[in-house]
Amino acid sequence: MKRQRYCVIMCGGAGTRFWPFSREARPKQFIDFFGTGQTLLQMTVERVRRLVPEENLIILTNEQYADTVREQIPGISPEHILLEPTRRDTAPAVLWAAHHIASRNADASFVALPADHVILKESAFHDALRTGFEFVEEGDSLLALGVPAKMPNTSYSYIQKGDDVEWNCHISRIKTIAEKPGKGMADIFVKSGEFLWNAGIYLGKATTVINAFNRDVPDMASRFDVEPDYYHGEKENDFIADIYPKTSSLPVEYAIMDRANNAFVLEADLGWSDLSTWNALHSLSPKNKDGNVTQNCRSILYDCKDCIVAAEGEKVVVAAGLKDYIVADTDTALLICPIDAEQRIRNIVNDIRERYGNNFT
Amino acid sequence: MKRQRYCVIMCGGAGTRFWPFSREARPKQFIDFFGTGQTLLQMTVERVRRLVPEENLIILTNEQYADTVREQIPGISPEHILLEPTRRDTAPAVLWAAHHIASRNADASFVALPADHVILKESAFHDALRTGFEFVEEGDSLLALGVPAKMPNTSYSYIQKGDDVEWNCHISRIKTIAEKPGKGMADIFVKSGEFLWNAGIYLGKATTVINAFNRDVPDMASRFDVEPDYYHGEKENDFIADIYPKTSSLPVEYAIMDRANNAFVLEADLGWSDLSTWNALHSLSPKNKDGNVTQNCRSILYDCKDCIVAAEGEKVVVAAGLKDYIVADTDTALLICPIDAEQRIRNIVNDIRERYGNNFT
Repeated sequence: MKRQRYCVIMCGGAGTRFWPFSREARPKQFIDFFGTGQTLLQMTVERVRRLVPEENLIILTNEQYADTVREQIPGISPEHILLEPTRRDTAPAVLWAAHHIASRNADASFVALPADHVILKESAFHDALRTGFEFVEEGDSLLALGVPAKMPNTSYSYIQKGDDVEWNCHISRIKTIAEKPGKGMADIFVKSGEFLWNAGIYLGKATTVINAFNRDVPDMASRFDVEPDYYHGEKENDFIADIYPKTSSLPVEYAIMDRANNAFVLEADLGWSDLSTWNALHSLSPKNKDGNVTQNCRSILYDCKDCIVAAEGEKVVVAAGLKDYIVADTDTALLICPIDAEQRIRNIVNDIRERYGNNFT
Repeated sequence: MKRQRYCVIMCGGAGTRFWPFSREARPKQFIDFFGTGQTLLQMTVERVRRLVPEENLIILTNEQYADTVREQIPGISPEHILLEPTRRDTAPAVLWAAHHIASRNADASFVALPADHVILKESAFHDALRTGFEFVEEGDSLLALGVPAKMPNTSYSYIQKGDDVEWNCHISRIKTIAEKPGKGMADIFVKSGEFLWNAGIYLGKATTVINAFNRDVPDMASRFDVEPDYYHGEKENDFIADIYPKTSSLPVEYAIMDRANNAFVLEADLGWSDLSTWNALHSLSPKNKDGNVTQNCRSILYDCKDCIVAAEGEKVVVAAGLKDYIVADTDTALLICPIDAEQRIRNIVNDIRERYGNNFT
């Protein structure tokens, strides 16, 4: 475990696609989706603890979730939680983290990764990150992790591999990054064999990252370009509270990874899913002989097939005659809808807000 | 309001057909099914208050529900609640009530009726009961209320009309009573025009009822045949606790109404339903343009037709793509099943008991 290696877990997102389980006030990273007793954030923290020393673990979240993070990761020191005053996507978050880390250790490298993904192959993940750290520490490169694209998923971002690198046969230059392609394009991507799913996991030395921002997003970069003492204690809070709201909202893959000529991708089969939909959860979860997945609940299903049934608490759920359905039940909301209608959940959530206010979303 | 008229509301039943709303511990008579703010029992009490003086209103229930009755009918005096120590169907209940009433007023007549039915035509109900009371008070007759049979329902009991009575063109002798006929037989019943649905509402003078039991069910009758002071206070409690468990379990229509040669039926269109199934509730309830009924809850239904959606509390229910479904949600259980599978609810409840114990039923 190298002392100059840091990990930044990003968990400030607020998705609604798992409504009613995920809420504005409790997005999916804070939920125990698989009924294992651990939330996605807790699993992510556990996963990276073998790679970086405890004191180099940083959790970056929206200030709205500060209490939730402290609750779920007890014992974490307050100075290891960076709280965004406003939502500005991943680019400002990664840039802030780079400065924060560089101000503590000029030689540091770090990995930034989302808290709400699933990684089933933990050793492959550890191997990939160790390889990735060695790679970025040796030169002056940015590295993304890419996962073999197994199907033409249209909700993912794709990384096109360019020339291979001599250093490691699994590392290539990034040719381009394409966000959420249409169905036809996604088919072409997968068939070409040149495209990987973008796992949203990025590595680099802190200084390399800062340099990339200086070069490609100078407006944003200049706001963060202050003396190192601005990245400590109260001064950091005040400084961020001042500049963060003025910063553009931009994802890190567009800000630097897609533009930098020193951006690479490491291909690794991580058993990865961004777990962005009920369908994804269904395909990752153990099923009974009828293809039904039941999460966290007592249930009796009669003549049901390929359903996902999730309920909070001690509830009994009885369903009959459902095929390819989501049944998701919480204290305050119940959703019963076809799995393939899950793209509509965002609209459903808007309808609910309009009709019944914000209490249910 | 004649002082010798009494009303006995029977509310000791424990059905499971409305599970998860109805439970062993809270059967349907204690539920506000239509979201009107009143339970079926409360509606029944309100309906009969115009017919009998307050002090002649008796509620007969299982001792398990004593607290619920006191809660739902606040101000009712304890001596107006008769508590069955065990379940013995309606015959012993009606016989006990007859003795209890006769011991207070030798000239009394009474109506015995279930607490868990729906009557939409309140004035017709009041008119029928007034006519009924006059009829039974004039002679020595038992009277049932029968409702024009509008469809061949196979879960009802039917009363076949015999000869008309001169006294009132709507009153006939009872020829026979048939319980839950098969589909073919029910069709014949309805087409014949001779059969009425048995509303489970019976009238008679207390002495007439006691005499009928003496004649037709002497074993049962002899147990109850004691001095009037046995039907007061502590002595009544002790006496009933002793004899009730030894009594046969029998419905009143078999014990006396189907056998007595002084049994009559008054035909009245009461807008009646025994509300024994979700389907019955669906057909009685106001529907939106898609035929959906929503009970007591905030809901958004997309592409749903002819469904019934009921939820407890402040919950939001979102459903998509359901046709002819029941969605019934309580704190501890959720049921999603086709309306035509409702006959299976009894089996479902048994399955749940077997798998998860009695807490959910």
